[in-house]
Amino acid sequence: MPRLPQVRTIVSQMAPYVPGEQPAPGERVIKLNTNENPFPPSPRVLEAIHSVDGEHLRRYPSPQADAFRATAAAVHGVSADMILAGNGSDEILAIAVRTFLGPGDTLAYPDPTYSLYPVLAATCENRVVTVPWETGWELPVAALLATGARAIFFANPNAPTGTLVRPSRVRELALAFDGLLLVDEAYVDFADENCLALVHELPNVMICRTFSKGYSLAGLRFGYAIAAPALVAEMSKVKDSYNCDAIAILAAIAAIEDQAYARTTWRAVRAERSRLAGELGKRGWEVIPSQTNFVLATCPGGGAAALYRELKRQGILVRHFDKPGLADKLRITVGTAEQNDALLAALPG
Amino acid sequence: MPRLPQVRTIVSQMAPYVPGEQPAPGERVIKLNTNENPFPPSPRVLEAIHSVDGEHLRRYPSPQADAFRATAAAVHGVSADMILAGNGSDEILAIAVRTFLGPGDTLAYPDPTYSLYPVLAATCENRVVTVPWETGWELPVAALLATGARAIFFANPNAPTGTLVRPSRVRELALAFDGLLLVDEAYVDFADENCLALVHELPNVMICRTFSKGYSLAGLRFGYAIAAPALVAEMSKVKDSYNCDAIAILAAIAAIEDQAYARTTWRAVRAERSRLAGELGKRGWEVIPSQTNFVLATCPGGGAAALYRELKRQGILVRHFDKPGLADKLRITVGTAEQNDALLAALPG
Repeated sequence: MPRLPQVRTIVSQMAPYVPGEQPAPGERVIKLNTNENPFPPSPRVLEAIHSVDGEHLRRYPSPQADAFRATAAAVHGVSADMILAGNGSDEILAIAVRTFLGPGDTLAYPDPTYSLYPVLAATCENRVVTVPWETGWELPVAALLATGARAIFFANPNAPTGTLVRPSRVRELALAFDGLLLVDEAYVDFADENCLALVHELPNVMICRTFSKGYSLAGLRFGYAIAAPALVAEMSKVKDSYNCDAIAILAAIAAIEDQAYARTTWRAVRAERSRLAGELGKRGWEVIPSQTNFVLATCPGGGAAALYRELKRQGILVRHFDKPGLADKLRITVGTAEQNDALLAALPG
Repeated sequence: MPRLPQVRTIVSQMAPYVPGEQPAPGERVIKLNTNENPFPPSPRVLEAIHSVDGEHLRRYPSPQADAFRATAAAVHGVSADMILAGNGSDEILAIAVRTFLGPGDTLAYPDPTYSLYPVLAATCENRVVTVPWETGWELPVAALLATGARAIFFANPNAPTGTLVRPSRVRELALAFDGLLLVDEAYVDFADENCLALVHELPNVMICRTFSKGYSLAGLRFGYAIAAPALVAEMSKVKDSYNCDAIAILAAIAAIEDQAYARTTWRAVRAERSRLAGELGKRGWEVIPSQTNFVLATCPGGGAAALYRELKRQGILVRHFDKPGLADKLRITVGTAEQNDALLAALPG
């Protein structure tokens, strides 16, 4: 009798993915743990979804999501062949790894940053080199260059710190680097600056964006890369033939077209972020200045893990990382004013 | 100044994907070239999509599409932990390759079969060994076993031949094989038999299904694997964390729950398939008996490529493969009665 077939050693050694806590359907919680936008998506997104008909679903979608590429190109002032659409920016990151990094090639990133990068690198049998952030969460340019990496990835603004590296500093790294510099701008809609202009000047810079945060569409799974046409063409060979579904393409177009609506939510999140950070400060928390829709803050007098559990007991989910440098902190998603008030009211002292 | 970053040699050497011809929006063609179901999806699918609200989109979806798993498990008489949901069965196939085949490991398949397998293997730097089908499109069991493969994939019913290998013959291969046997049942809803029962008996058999053909949802991108829980658990580590979007999960549940509707379309396609094959036969075509929603047929007197172009000129798209053993044939998707009549009327003689 055949046995269970053997999986790759590298896979059997991987820890299974532990998804962020999701409340059960119907459970009433204040969910400030996975950095979703607290406001609903643009009404135009729902209109687009509700207009879908059977013929649209029966046929294969556009392999490159052409209509989305054209719209996003116009919004960003780039050409359509500089846009690669994906099933969430996680898929874009995975495609980038598969396109640029073979077995044994080095991926470098500052630590801590998005926890997906090492998982993707493991699947492709890449070598991973991490470099600590410089003081003040500044990009460690020299140390990253010294890794001899073929690709450098980092989230900007960064997770879980919420900090932003200025575009001039990112440019400095890109100018001195021969490989792919992927700037993962998942949270950039809440920031003061972005690195988009660098793609016009520097062919080794790739910008990665998502609809999960800024456009309130985490459920949709839609992200995209912006990069030199030659890079997009190579990545297109590696992606699944039809990686974006017909409904998501329509919804993403409707969302990105409604910049006025999106900007309203970004402004509201930024205003609540300031207020939340200020109120936490008054209560003795040390809050890292955030350019995202969350704050990373040090619990006064320690006990972050215990407080996380106590908040959960009260129906308020936040995020605690049991890791060196993070264990004394909580990462709190900026919610609506009511949600933030509820959190503040639940804090001790 | 930095140059374009280098991509992996294996990627730069890949030919870019050439999508099947898609008519431009508004263009009126009879599209019998990419094996879509000619009937619309169940009305319940559209109801499910039209019920989506902003809260559903704002939040991350279920990482494992739990509600779909439960529904599909009930329909198929398996446990929910035997179901892995994916962004199209193409993603399921890609995840299987990444889970079971490292660089240098061998993937074997009978030739011709689904043209995606070698593309996936190339990205993972696997070795590929192909084996010709036995006479009568029978599974070459001994030759496949002799390859020393870690995994064997094949489409059943097969594309582009439309032929089915009986489950007893598949079982024979699985019993003698130590690696993963992936039976890609994309077209199985139109066939007389399927291999689902084998997963209960044989831990090395994985069944792959899709909503693109049988459920008229090619635009949705939803597929799934059915296999031993241990295999599903390992593959879950390799997939993107949130690989299925919230709308697609709802739509897939609605589709698979409406078995009565789906079966009506399958019966109609099978009836039209018989009629189309019969009419082609009367006109001198040699038609391979099909268990799918397409027929592969040899053009009487040659000239398949020229006929393909002439049909296209008349607004009828079919598929021609310019490959040894296939160049004298056309692959024709079974359309509605009206579409098939139009095709038959356009044939010479």
